[in-house]
Amino acid sequence: MQMDSRFISQIRGAIDDKTKPRGALGRLEALAAQLCQIQQTLSPSLTDPTILVFAADHAHGVVSAYPREVTAQMALNVLAGGAAINVFSRQHGIEVMLVDSGVDWPGDKPRGMVDCWMGPGTRNMLTGDAMTADELERCLRAGADVVDQVVAPTCTIMGFGELGIGNTSSASLLISALAGIPLEDCVGPGTGLVGEGLSRKLNRLCQVQMRHPRPSNAREALAMFGGFEIAQMCAAMRRGFETGRILMIDGFVATAAFLAVWSENPLIMGNAIFCHESGEPGHAAVLERLGAKPLLRLGMRLGEGTGCAVAYPIITSAAAFLNEMASFSQAGVSTGGPENA
Amino acid sequence: MQMDSRFISQIRGAIDDKTKPRGALGRLEALAAQLCQIQQTLSPSLTDPTILVFAADHAHGVVSAYPREVTAQMALNVLAGGAAINVFSRQHGIEVMLVDSGVDWPGDKPRGMVDCWMGPGTRNMLTGDAMTADELERCLRAGADVVDQVVAPTCTIMGFGELGIGNTSSASLLISALAGIPLEDCVGPGTGLVGEGLSRKLNRLCQVQMRHPRPSNAREALAMFGGFEIAQMCAAMRRGFETGRILMIDGFVATAAFLAVWSENPLIMGNAIFCHESGEPGHAAVLERLGAKPLLRLGMRLGEGTGCAVAYPIITSAAAFLNEMASFSQAGVSTGGPENA
Repeated sequence: MQMDSRFISQIRGAIDDKTKPRGALGRLEALAAQLCQIQQTLSPSLTDPTILVFAADHAHGVVSAYPREVTAQMALNVLAGGAAINVFSRQHGIEVMLVDSGVDWPGDKPRGMVDCWMGPGTRNMLTGDAMTADELERCLRAGADVVDQVVAPTCTIMGFGELGIGNTSSASLLISALAGIPLEDCVGPGTGLVGEGLSRKLNRLCQVQMRHPRPSNAREALAMFGGFEIAQMCAAMRRGFETGRILMIDGFVATAAFLAVWSENPLIMGNAIFCHESGEPGHAAVLERLGAKPLLRLGMRLGEGTGCAVAYPIITSAAAFLNEMASFSQAGVSTGGPENA
Repeated sequence: MQMDSRFISQIRGAIDDKTKPRGALGRLEALAAQLCQIQQTLSPSLTDPTILVFAADHAHGVVSAYPREVTAQMALNVLAGGAAINVFSRQHGIEVMLVDSGVDWPGDKPRGMVDCWMGPGTRNMLTGDAMTADELERCLRAGADVVDQVVAPTCTIMGFGELGIGNTSSASLLISALAGIPLEDCVGPGTGLVGEGLSRKLNRLCQVQMRHPRPSNAREALAMFGGFEIAQMCAAMRRGFETGRILMIDGFVATAAFLAVWSENPLIMGNAIFCHESGEPGHAAVLERLGAKPLLRLGMRLGEGTGCAVAYPIITSAAAFLNEMASFSQAGVSTGGPENA
């Protein structure tokens, strides 16, 4: 992203010349300016929007409101078009690609997924690292390859979602380690733990954290805490940034992945749109640490990239007003002064 | 709206049977339930969405950042398709109807508007009422007639917007009178007043308020403070409610109109969706007084119904997940328990 002050004032001029009071489109104006800066144009264009949904299992023994087999079941649901992400993506013409990062399939793998399978889930973090250094390297290559080889070259805006019973545990550990937020402020209900179950989840994750040294960088943290889907998502976000795409960041787990990439290259922030603030309680804390302002606050906490899909039309509205609204001179509208009585 | 507890639990059951953790779609779930209750169905349907934009002028002497002729100029801009409301409505297939409630045209009236013209703007509130009792009655009839005679009978969701230099002044006076909020908490920049200009606006409106008795009901308040577009919008909202439509409420001025209708029949709340919290500072106060939770908080303050148009896809997402997502049994997904390890 080029921070050319002349270009920035051209953007401001184009926005202020639209037939509306200055600043009257609020956040949409800032969003339009961001799209201009990412694409280095005054006419930003959103084409072939694509949401990548990375799916993987986690070690047996994670604490969740749903059994482990739900990861595979929900992946099949996405393939059949019946999940929330399918509904919202169909609504807005967004392509959904499901990436098999490491689902524990009960039988044969289904067709129709992008194959980045690393194994039937990560390892138990109580007794060692979630993945080996070699597995992490393979994850990072695979995530970048998905962007280079599967996503359409004409896609200018990508969203990132995930599926994986147990993955808010990995996300909590990553966020605590990389953002320095206490674990108790990161751990939440995930798919719906309450009371005793939620306490057990926090206790388990505190034990995991105590059995590992504090990671000294994002790679160490990803190997320690996983999961396969998060590591692959990190690489896909980074590759999306390197190829100049607009990046739609979903909720708690996707923001954990973003945090890991951002800790290595904060410039990625320029391309990122934080689509919503999740109902998962730790999300607000990490967004604040990143200085990120989410577009929506609807209390959603479903993952799958659903926050990206629901927020997408707001982003297209930002591009549309800049591309399509009449200017003051085109419409013959008088401009405002400080006061007219 | 029928508050049948058996029907309400059927709605809850249908939402909870979708393949997602309970409550994981947050606000979209409450919105889906509201759509079901309005339409008395478990398969709500949004058809022929229509936004009515009521345009009128206000007395010479109002304090605004823009000159009075901008009302007519912006109405022409809407007719030509170049205003923000046109852009966002095209994006989502929403029909925009511009209602001429009382624009002060410099020459011939243009074609293409719904003709409800009451005169070239309301009267000076410093020296009397903004409109006569007879004018108010004609406004109320005209607003209802627009819904009955111009809006498609197949339209199930209507939005309400406005155009009119000076109309945040009328809205502030209405809100202060009907919600009992001090005028200084209702008056804001409108199209962009700052500093001295904003102080002059507040002083002028305090003078207006002091020269009128406290109105004893919504009709008295509407006649005192206007405007033609606000009174017609009130009647259109009420008729939209009576005909079972979903009502999308825009920003500060539209909420003032809603408040007036609500004060006569609070049941209208069941059909209303507050699309956004405006950047106009008094809006948050009146939303809170109504107990209304806006869908978006994007700092928009443009009027025209733009908040309705930008929020509309969120409402369609709520209907879509209920109509299209697979249930647990359809997708063969295991349901959650309190905890699975």
